[in-house]
This record gives sequence, C-alpha cells and structure tokens, in this order.
Amino acid sequence: MCELLGMSANVPTDIVFSFTGLMQRGGGTGPHRDGWGIGFYEGRGLRLFQDPEASVNSEVAKLVQRYPIKSETVIGHIRQANVGQVALANTHPFVRELWGRNWCFAHNGQLADFTPPSRFYRPVGDTDSEAAFCDLLNRVRSAFPEPVPVDVLLPVLVAACGHYRGKGVFNCLLSNGDWLFTFCSTKLAQITRRAPFGPAQLKDAEVTVDFHAETTPDDVVTVIATEPLTANETWHRHEPGDWTLWRRGECLASGRI
Amino acid sequence: MCELLGMSANVPTDIVFSFTGLMQRGGGTGPHRDGWGIGFYEGRGLRLFQDPEASVNSEVAKLVQRYPIKSETVIGHIRQANVGQVALANTHPFVRELWGRNWCFAHNGQLADFTPPSRFYRPVGDTDSEAAFCDLLNRVRSAFPEPVPVDVLLPVLVAACGHYRGKGVFNCLLSNGDWLFTFCSTKLAQITRRAPFGPAQLKDAEVTVDFHAETTPDDVVTVIATEPLTANETWHRHEPGDWTLWRRGECLASGRI
Repeated sequence: MCELLGMSANVPTDIVFSFTGLMQRGGGTGPHRDGWGIGFYEGRGLRLFQDPEASVNSEVAKLVQRYPIKSETVIGHIRQANVGQVALANTHPFVRELWGRNWCFAHNGQLADFTPPSRFYRPVGDTDSEAAFCDLLNRVRSAFPEPVPVDVLLPVLVAACGHYRGKGVFNCLLSNGDWLFTFCSTKLAQITRRAPFGPAQLKDAEVTVDFHAETTPDDVVTVIATEPLTANETWHRHEPGDWTLWRRGECLASGRI
Repeated sequence: MCELLGMSANVPTDIVFSFTGLMQRGGGTGPHRDGWGIGFYEGRGLRLFQDPEASVNSEVAKLVQRYPIKSETVIGHIRQANVGQVALANTHPFVRELWGRNWCFAHNGQLADFTPPSRFYRPVGDTDSEAAFCDLLNRVRSAFPEPVPVDVLLPVLVAACGHYRGKGVFNCLLSNGDWLFTFCSTKLAQITRRAPFGPAQLKDAEVTVDFHAETTPDDVVTVIATEPLTANETWHRHEPGDWTLWRRGECLASGRI
C-alpha cells in the first residue's frame, strides 16, 4: 500500500512540515520505500518531483524539504509497490493534460480484475493506479469533450470512483490546479487549519512548527493524508465512500456513496 | 530567443558537464534568464526539472548539477521570453502522453500568425512553442490513432516542422524516449563523441572534463545544442532545413527540406 498527502490552501503555502513527516514513512518509520513523488501547482503550471528511490534516502526529497515551494494545491505520494515494478514510470503522482489544464492524480490501494478499455489516455507504466487515472480521464473526456464547471463534472468523478472501489481499494487525490477532489475507499484523514493557529508536532519526526508564526489570520490550509501526520491535533477521518471537493482550503462539496 | 540542449547516448550517461555550460548562459554568460528546464528519460519514465527562475540562481539547477542523473535521452532548454510571461506553465520542455509514451519537446525561435486549431492536445500556458507542440501531436494523432514505427511517422514530423518554419524560426528537439528528433530552422550544432575519448573544455565556465576517464570504449554520446558548448572540439553545424533522427547516440536518418 501507499500513503497520500494533499493540500488545498487559500494562499501559497509551503508543505515542508507535512512533507517531512510523510518522507519519514518512506523507508524510515514506514515501509513505503518504492518511490515517492509530489506535484505543486504554480498557477497553471505543475512542478513535479519524483524518485523511484526510498524517500528517506532521496537527494530530490532533501531538496524539496530544504527549499520551501509555495503552492495552493499539492498532491504527494509515497509508494510501497504491489502492482508494477519499482521504476520512475510507475511513480505517482501521474499527470495528463485535459482541456488545457494539468490534471494530477495519486492513488492508495489496489484494484483487481481491472482492465479498462484502451482509449485516448493510455498508461505509460504498468500500475493499476495509472490505468485508473487514464480511465477516469477517458470517462471525463467522453462525457465532456469541452470544459465544464466542476459541479457538472462531479457526478462523473464520483461515479468513476464508485466503479473503481468495486474493484478493490481506491483512495485517491485528483486536481486540475483549481480544485482538489478526494475519495476515501478505506482510509483518509484531514485537518483544516485556520486562525487561531497553534503549534503542531509531527508523529514521525522530532519536528514541531508554530503555525501562528508562519501564517496570517486569514489563512486557511487543509491537509489530507492517509494517516494523521501530527500527534497533538484532531484530524477528521473520512468514512468509506466519502468524497470531498476542496478549493482554496475550504470544502466546496462533499458526499458519500 | 532560447537555447536548446539535447543528448542521445547508447548507455545511460550523465549530462552534468554540458548542463553546467548551458546553465551559465541562463543569466550568467547569456541573457536567457526567464526559466529553464530539463527532462531525463529513465526507461519509459521522464524526470522533469523546471524553474521559471534564472538558471544561474536556481536551487533546482544546482541539484541537477550536483546529482548526476544518468539517461540515454535528454532534452533541455533555457528561456529568454518573447511570447508568454515568465511562468512555470510557459517553461520548456513540454510533455504530453501519446500512445502510452511520454513525448517531450523544446523549441528555440518564434512563430508569427500562428493559431493552430484547438483539437485534442491543448496548451496549458500561452507560448507559441507549446501551441506548436500540441499542434504537432494533434497532427500525429490524426494521421495515426494507433502507434506506428518511427520511419512511418517521420514524414509527418518533417512536414509539420516545414509548416512551422514557414511561420518564423523553429529549431526544436522532440523525443518519445526511444528516439530523439531534431529540426534546424536557423541554428543547431552537434557533436558525437566516441572512442578515443579526450578532454573537453567548456566555453562558458572554467570546467574541463576528461571523457576518457568517464567512459568505456563502446560508448557513443551525441550532444546537440543551439551553440557549441566546448571550445576545443569540432562541432557540426546543421544547415537551415536539416532534420535528424537519433537513437542510442547514432544518426538513424536525416534530410533537408
């Protein structure tokens, strides 16, 4: 299995603190040593760092921890391979262009008997995760050849997730840079931080941050992860079937299937 | 204008030496301070580093110089903006998936009166370069919905380049990870290094490398750049209209239009 990390914020925010915790689970406090990746939206651009190396040993991960990249929407992932060998092409998150936007996707789980039809978007690697992402985009594209608002799109996303969930475990994060969509099939937790901000203590490393000193009173930052990343805060655990749509740190819509 | 850097090799080779020279031109010895990017194929995967910062000051560029990534096919670019603001979404190289492969593209030049039809692949940013890349992939996809061998593909690539060249300046590098295609509209130079290897001295930095110590006798490494990167070697300058197809360091096919 793998671990997911997502962020949605109303102001460009660095994710160094949460990323530092997650990276420890990539071969340090956790077994996810088969690669890691993280994508940061900057405007319509997407800055993607990936490495098939264990994150605790990765030079690229050290750069990301040292060099605070500020973004409003982030998708990260550490991998413990089950389907597909350890290789860059099998490393999440995956990216495709649709409607002139970068769509970014990461998956935690495993799908069985999953052989979607080969249509426009096709996997480069051989993971079930990338196959699901391509299938999801093919569904969106077939339903809507031209861009539609996210509220029109949502039923297609939710129905697709319901389908994949029927094939196994399907926790996922998906973004087009404007919004962040999450689906919980078995495990996903979330925290929304806003004023008054306080200190937070990582579970996986001896690191504490005082968000009060790093934020303004208007900041709203939601972090989503497979397991809570901090020891001293209350995270909200999603239930199986929960989907949520985030924009600028706030929940725009949610439901359960 | 911009500068291009490409590599095709028959063994995974690091490009630190050439990259170090190119990066100096990004705000150091050259005026190309509006971003840079480089893509390294690793199997079917593509490792992409990009930064809208000037490369001489870029933390990410320092990582790439410090951390020798070995690849058989590389496409790099430093940008001096003419069309499109300085932003990550406008930073080369550009990537799209076609036929389950990552296609990577970088352009040097400028196109006028260029408004290709909006079809499947659409630009995320607002450069003429990304618009040309999307148009080229749309042409390929329309001609061949399913994969074809590169010799069948070549006439479509060459015809598209001929079209873009009619709209302005169009020097480009294109790869699908298997081969590297180059087109010279005004300026492109190339060197193929093979045994006996000797020392090379960068033009843009006080750096010398002894390739003899870093290679085996069977290595073949071709480097393509807008301007020769070394002072003590003989580079072959391409003529306007020259196209070349490289695989594993060797020229597979070439021609002039």
